[in-house]
Amino acid sequence: MKIKLIQIQDTNEKYLKEGINEYLKRLKKYCKVDIITIKPIKNAKHLSIEELKNKEIQAIKTKLDSRDYVYLLDERGQNPKSIDFAQKIEKISINHPCIAFVIGGAYGFNDAFRKEANDLLSLSKMTFSHQLIRVIFLEQIYRAFSILNGDPYHNED
Amino acid sequence: MKIKLIQIQDTNEKYLKEGINEYLKRLKKYCKVDIITIKPIKNAKHLSIEELKNKEIQAIKTKLDSRDYVYLLDERGQNPKSIDFAQKIEKISINHPCIAFVIGGAYGFNDAFRKEANDLLSLSKMTFSHQLIRVIFLEQIYRAFSILNGDPYHNED
Repeated sequence: MKIKLIQIQDTNEKYLKEGINEYLKRLKKYCKVDIITIKPIKNAKHLSIEELKNKEIQAIKTKLDSRDYVYLLDERGQNPKSIDFAQKIEKISINHPCIAFVIGGAYGFNDAFRKEANDLLSLSKMTFSHQLIRVIFLEQIYRAFSILNGDPYHNED
Repeated sequence: MKIKLIQIQDTNEKYLKEGINEYLKRLKKYCKVDIITIKPIKNAKHLSIEELKNKEIQAIKTKLDSRDYVYLLDERGQNPKSIDFAQKIEKISINHPCIAFVIGGAYGFNDAFRKEANDLLSLSKMTFSHQLIRVIFLEQIYRAFSILNGDPYHNED
């Protein structure tokens, strides 16, 4: 099972990088995780929000493979329990070699891309910083694999 | 407005401490935040989960003031949108000088304490590590105050 995490912009805070590295390290025993970072769009300040989102989505699409299960982190998605999310990952893995999770920029995605994607995942009804979400999400992926493998993390941490 | 954040055990990871300090620094312009840490219960390994929770709750109660609005972070709580959470904080502040948010230990709270509390807050249907939650929660408090003050953070970060 391979996980691709596509994100806009580098992670800017040192403590977030350390959190990400911590979970990437722990995840090694369960799966391969590739983090793919889209560089900031040039002249973003002179674009409308819709134009900026379009350019970001175009750049994201160049990183997707036709066999990827495309799973957008989006506020309109379902917010499953961790155990249900884990089971969903297991189910997807039967037919897909790779799940590509995509964390959008500050303004998220547009309807067209939401429709093209296989699924939408919401981590909460609350809005979290799109930088902090990277750590929250990797912890959730780690939790999912620990559940699927019957490891104690989910109940004890 | 004063915010009390009561938690079980020190924060154990350096990167989480840095994240917490980052948001505490940013929050200074909006409110006073006190983090109160309950020391680990002695001989916890020899207690049942219920006994451990009872002891933790007793220790938490010694940190509460009768005028505090007691707001437990609990999976059975509501998961509001950030903007609704912000408005709730504003409303509470009319009658309470301090909101005491409580993050439980690995096993959470019991029904009796849930009933005694003023309110329950869920950050997600997903389970997050009770250590990572500290940063997620402080970011949410910062977001709430930025919303109430009309600052741009909520829409741009």
